[in-house]
Amino acid sequence: MFEAVEIGNALSKEAYKARIPDLRVNLINAQYDLQEADFPVVILLAGNDRLGCNALLHTLHDLMDGRYMRTNALGCPTAEELERPRFWRYWRTLPRRGQIGVFLGAWPLNAMQDYLSGNLKKVDLERRLEHIRRFEQDLVADGALLLKFWLHLSKDVFKQRLKAAKKNPREAWQIEAEDWQAYTVYDDAIKVAERVVHETDTGEAPWHLIESRNARYRDATVGQAIFEALSQRLQHDSADTSPHMPVAPATSPQAPQPTILDTVDLSTSLSRSDYRRQRTTYQGQLSRLSDQAAMQGISSILVFEGWDAAGKGGVIRRLTAAMDPEHYNVFPVAAPTPEELAHPYLWRFWRRLPRAGDVTIFDRSWYGRVLVERVEGLASASEWQRAYSEINDFEEQLGDSGIVLLKFWLHIDQDEQLRRFRDRETTPYKKYKMTDEDYRNRDSWPRYEQAVHDMILHTSTKQAPWHLIPSNHKRWARIEVLKTYCQRLEERL
Amino acid sequence: MFEAVEIGNALSKEAYKARIPDLRVNLINAQYDLQEADFPVVILLAGNDRLGCNALLHTLHDLMDGRYMRTNALGCPTAEELERPRFWRYWRTLPRRGQIGVFLGAWPLNAMQDYLSGNLKKVDLERRLEHIRRFEQDLVADGALLLKFWLHLSKDVFKQRLKAAKKNPREAWQIEAEDWQAYTVYDDAIKVAERVVHETDTGEAPWHLIESRNARYRDATVGQAIFEALSQRLQHDSADTSPHMPVAPATSPQAPQPTILDTVDLSTSLSRSDYRRQRTTYQGQLSRLSDQAAMQGISSILVFEGWDAAGKGGVIRRLTAAMDPEHYNVFPVAAPTPEELAHPYLWRFWRRLPRAGDVTIFDRSWYGRVLVERVEGLASASEWQRAYSEINDFEEQLGDSGIVLLKFWLHIDQDEQLRRFRDRETTPYKKYKMTDEDYRNRDSWPRYEQAVHDMILHTSTKQAPWHLIPSNHKRWARIEVLKTYCQRLEERL
Repeated sequence: MFEAVEIGNALSKEAYKARIPDLRVNLINAQYDLQEADFPVVILLAGNDRLGCNALLHTLHDLMDGRYMRTNALGCPTAEELERPRFWRYWRTLPRRGQIGVFLGAWPLNAMQDYLSGNLKKVDLERRLEHIRRFEQDLVADGALLLKFWLHLSKDVFKQRLKAAKKNPREAWQIEAEDWQAYTVYDDAIKVAERVVHETDTGEAPWHLIESRNARYRDATVGQAIFEALSQRLQHDSADTSPHMPVAPATSPQAPQPTILDTVDLSTSLSRSDYRRQRTTYQGQLSRLSDQAAMQGISSILVFEGWDAAGKGGVIRRLTAAMDPEHYNVFPVAAPTPEELAHPYLWRFWRRLPRAGDVTIFDRSWYGRVLVERVEGLASASEWQRAYSEINDFEEQLGDSGIVLLKFWLHIDQDEQLRRFRDRETTPYKKYKMTDEDYRNRDSWPRYEQAVHDMILHTSTKQAPWHLIPSNHKRWARIEVLKTYCQRLEERL
Repeated sequence: MFEAVEIGNALSKEAYKARIPDLRVNLINAQYDLQEADFPVVILLAGNDRLGCNALLHTLHDLMDGRYMRTNALGCPTAEELERPRFWRYWRTLPRRGQIGVFLGAWPLNAMQDYLSGNLKKVDLERRLEHIRRFEQDLVADGALLLKFWLHLSKDVFKQRLKAAKKNPREAWQIEAEDWQAYTVYDDAIKVAERVVHETDTGEAPWHLIESRNARYRDATVGQAIFEALSQRLQHDSADTSPHMPVAPATSPQAPQPTILDTVDLSTSLSRSDYRRQRTTYQGQLSRLSDQAAMQGISSILVFEGWDAAGKGGVIRRLTAAMDPEHYNVFPVAAPTPEELAHPYLWRFWRRLPRAGDVTIFDRSWYGRVLVERVEGLASASEWQRAYSEINDFEEQLGDSGIVLLKFWLHIDQDEQLRRFRDRETTPYKKYKMTDEDYRNRDSWPRYEQAVHDMILHTSTKQAPWHLIPSNHKRWARIEVLKTYCQRLEERL
């Protein structure tokens, strides 16, 4: 989940300076409109970048009118708070309608701290997360605009930050022993963080994961996200006279540059002879492993998504060549049938789940909801936004039942796609694959990029991570997928 | 929770016969309209009355057109189902839009069985319940009309039913060894059932708890509930052209006769001398116990609800007389202030929570949402319907934090209320208590009865049960409350 935001987002000094004045005017104007409105704004700043949260808060105070914004730094509970139920401290500090309340750390971080310090057992963590979900759900049902930002630092950057801060007189005094302590337990903490973020990333209250490495990028992104969500909600409320309907803020407020896809190294390649050799090796392995899996009743589900002409079919054929046809099924996902449309979205995928020992390969999948259906407007905003948690829940159930689930994104760039389109047109047996629509889709490339980025952010979990496969070079992609599946099967057997 | 439906609901043969023909016509017509509509109906029949679920299903088949209603009896999973993730069996049998799917037992009973048979640990039961909540939430979000009926038998009646069925040739063959087995573990099972029902009783998917003792009452009540929810939804959909908004069915479809309040024995009384003696005893006890509680940092919250003039003030004074003023606070709940209205409903109660060792007495409480606000239309249907689960979550947090929570309903009948109103008007220092509104409220008595009944059904939990106090005789009520609080404190200390 978090690796999807470790992509080196940054904003230059000039770009930052150019954006800030407008953002400030926009935010302050929105804040004034908010005072007349009938809903409160709850901004939650959490993550593993404690100093970053503080710095961001300073920026927000610079960008907005502090008189109408109350900050609640909820770290260790006070004696007074310890004498009450845990959520007392959050309830009593909720902003009233028309105002903004900023919460630092608060419920998600407190849950993490309690668990990591051994004060919460596993079953109690689950209950706490359930209370958090309900708390947030109740706030939203009551009309609150809830914006949750998780500021993430990779382990390397975490260490760099601490070291740098120690040398910087303006920051040194802010570092506490616990920050170094936090670094030593980084790996444990990140696992718990993933669980907490994953379990509280709901349709009503989605998380915005923010890379916190570059302060300018972080502050400008959060500020812009707050402005866009706030102005969207203000517009919605003033236009709409129907009874209140909760509106979830857009998941990613602006096209992130770069996206996670930009981290994929597309220059990889493989010679024909190396390819043949490795193909033989891995297909042999796969054949043996998948027989074993079938005998032990271990099922697999392989999900293939990717750009048009990224080579999904070719990869799938290299896999199935090594598998027993009795035990696998390839299911190409096209537009839903009327029967499928008459059921909830995930129904048609539930129906295709493999029996024990079998393998189902999805050529495109349930991710259509948050990709093509989102980009082409075939699903409403609320439908695709809540799909992330529906899908996570679905995949969690697959994992719990012992199914090996792999998700591949086959990545190519636009030039390579064009080359392949042209190639298809001139290859007699591939011609049928091309339609005008394929060219039209290319215009939506940036919007697909954003959708892919959000998808990976919200659905790449420890249990079911996304594998981004560089596919400009087909041979490389095929070996990469074969190898990945073999490794996963081996771990599992 | 379940004791609230053990009240002897019954319908005579004549009354049943009189109602059935209309109900059948209504249901069949609604079913035809449903075929043109854009939503599916999911009816879940569960509970501890397995034979009752079967019998009810027969009645439903008699009342509706079986061609457009598919039944899914999901008991022990089949071999095919065991090879897939647990929810596969539910997903694959979901009805399509325009159709009715009836599920017998299914997800709630399967969870109970897995837990009771030792296949699910406690932490996994919590996760399973979370999956159930999300599954139901997703169905409703997708547009389904989800109706959940829990058929309950008390332990006595459970045994009688099995014995009677054994003698009845038409039923004897239906009884299985597991039914007797279910009887022997009745007490354990009912605890798990309460947890399952409580945790899945949400605003979007509330449970209808049905007393299953009398088959005619049960079948007519469920049939009527289905008809009302279905026709309400059909009307809503045809009237409304705005985007789909989930509609929760009304919690109790019709005024139950009798309600739980009719089980309160109002003939109890206490002589003046007995009263004095007992008051001295219990006030002495309370004084000692509440000192101890204060020292140990154990807090209490006492909630008083009841009819106007039921004597809440008098009871509260008899309690506080024995308590240290430093440690208690009485908080009379009136209409919310503008500041309170600017926050979520429960905010003003969260703020009043006692610190460790203290006692807060609420003269009226958060239950106003599902009583006066519901009956007088001050809260929207969706607001008061989701309040049950908000309140349960709130009280669960109070319990988890170690607070002793007691909830009293002071019950009087209408005659007694009138007597007290008249009395107030002629007593100089009580005159100020009377307004015309008090008399007007008497007209709403049946609607309040229904609201109280639903409130107790949905919020009387093992951890925080309601105590129904017969209060026609004031002395009796005062002793009863004193005694109950002393007992709870004694258990806790």
